[in-house]
Amino acid sequence: MSSAHRSGTPFVTQVRVRYADTDAEGVVYYGSYLVYFEVARVELLRALGCPIGWARERRLVFPAVHADCHYRRPGRVDDLLDVRLWLGRLGRASFGFDYQVCRDGEVLADGSTRHAAVDVGSGRAVALPAWFTDLWRRAGQTVGGVA
Amino acid sequence: MSSAHRSGTPFVTQVRVRYADTDAEGVVYYGSYLVYFEVARVELLRALGCPIGWARERRLVFPAVHADCHYRRPGRVDDLLDVRLWLGRLGRASFGFDYQVCRDGEVLADGSTRHAAVDVGSGRAVALPAWFTDLWRRAGQTVGGVA
Amino acid sequence: MSSAHRSGTPFVTQVRVRYADTDAEGVVYYGSYLVYFEVARVELLRALGCPIGWARERRLVFPAVHADCHYRRPGRVDDLLDVRLWLGRLGRASFGFDYQVCRDGEVLADGSTRHAAVDVGSGRAVALPAWFTDLWRRAGQTVGGVA
Amino acid sequence: MSSAHRSGTPFVTQVRVRYADTDAEGVVYYGSYLVYFEVARVELLRALGCPIGWARERRLVFPAVHADCHYRRPGRVDDLLDVRLWLGRLGRASFGFDYQVCRDGEVLADGSTRHAAVDVGSGRAVALPAWFTDLWRRAGQTVGGVA
Repeated sequence: MSSAHRSGTPFVTQVRVRYADTDAEGVVYYGSYLVYFEVARVELLRALGCPIGWARERRLVFPAVHADCHYRRPGRVDDLLDVRLWLGRLGRASFGFDYQVCRDGEVLADGSTRHAAVDVGSGRAVALPAWFTDLWRRAGQTVGGVA
Repeated sequence: MSSAHRSGTPFVTQVRVRYADTDAEGVVYYGSYLVYFEVARVELLRALGCPIGWARERRLVFPAVHADCHYRRPGRVDDLLDVRLWLGRLGRASFGFDYQVCRDGEVLADGSTRHAAVDVGSGRAVALPAWFTDLWRRAGQTVGGVA
Repeated sequence: MSSAHRSGTPFVTQVRVRYADTDAEGVVYYGSYLVYFEVARVELLRALGCPIGWARERRLVFPAVHADCHYRRPGRVDDLLDVRLWLGRLGRASFGFDYQVCRDGEVLADGSTRHAAVDVGSGRAVALPAWFTDLWRRAGQTVGGVA
Repeated sequence: MSSAHRSGTPFVTQVRVRYADTDAEGVVYYGSYLVYFEVARVELLRALGCPIGWARERRLVFPAVHADCHYRRPGRVDDLLDVRLWLGRLGRASFGFDYQVCRDGEVLADGSTRHAAVDVGSGRAVALPAWFTDLWRRAGQTVGGVA
């Protein structure tokens, strides 16, 4: 949850706001923050050695089962944003992330997502394999988490 | 919150899933549900006599301050979806909606959004004017709500 | 090509402009017109008895090999648009459409797309099967075309 | 036009394909290439010293009046793409770009866009100011063009 206590150093990815991300109110569309969350967690998993293709070869995808976002201040076209990511709770068959989207250190939005592990072939939820939980625990040595 | 008790008859809008809404996992992209929520609340406000242009002429826009979504089952391209909307809590300067996205009566996703009233000129949050709270209360006579 | 001579009655689909379709210039994002084109051709194929699922069961998808668009006037959020579609040239392994996007009879944008027939399994281009060319010719009895 | 002769060194921007850019066929959605074109030309203008905000302060925006794209090979989620940009023709009140989207040197798509200069206040097309044509000519010393 976005009200959670974040501690430790986040993993940071930068995104530039595109016109395609904004809407006629002159601000970043509220759904675009979920795209920025996607970018950050894909980059985190890549940094951990688990890019999308690598997981798929192991028959795993990680669809969102939950997402939430609080909107604090409007983002604008061409803004260069930091997407900060913290590790959320690791479950038996799911895991979560916590995010802040910032411009010059100011929080525009924060939120969280939770993801299941799903077998590509059957489309069914499965327990996280040991290789994934190992990666996750290793990540926790450098990336902050949510208590 | 999506765990809220919904009661009464929802306002229902239909959307057809476009290829543009889906992603390479073969399912509706998780951010697209926020677009479907947008469609439903714009149509509800239109049905109440408050289309986007009408509100803007009165110098009001209603940006999201919060959104959340639980993903239950994957949506697919070309699905014809019912987006069900219930009225959430009406505050002094904000209001909320609760949503279910269904295919053939089966819930694919549910969630909620909360919106502030913002003055178009100043960009600042303002109290909801009487004409809006009147519309909202009238809506409550036919559209179900969240307790 | 969008400079082509359109003749006969177009197939017409309506779309409502969503905030998600617009950008920070206050107008419809230039890429969104390709989404409107998608909506129109999917509805035309459905009206012909060939919805997406039906084609996929016959192992066919129709990816775009070309698209172009001329932008005449800006679309705005909440506009109710007519997307007019004419049949383009039918080839051995591809077919095309021509489009106009209109608001109250005024053309906002026009363009065209061209599509190959691709086998779902192999991902390779194939000749259009007889059932498709039959559908197309039947369509030509009621839907206008491009000379 | 995408059939044009490109000569000289293109300006190159990289984009990573997001899930949000893809569709249920497992490939990059055809409209997403127009977003990649947007990213490339915004970065080119920034490199020339004309970021979006700088142009707006001078009351100018550059909406697309034309776009076209040929799709050669499918892009995939997580692909790291080079978007190559060449300068198109500079007119009195408009200018153009030519693009190739490549993965490992292989062309996935190519196309072009053309843009008018529009006054932010009046919404009307205007002649390109001298400061813009100066920037453009300077760009031509390092960025290739289309004959």
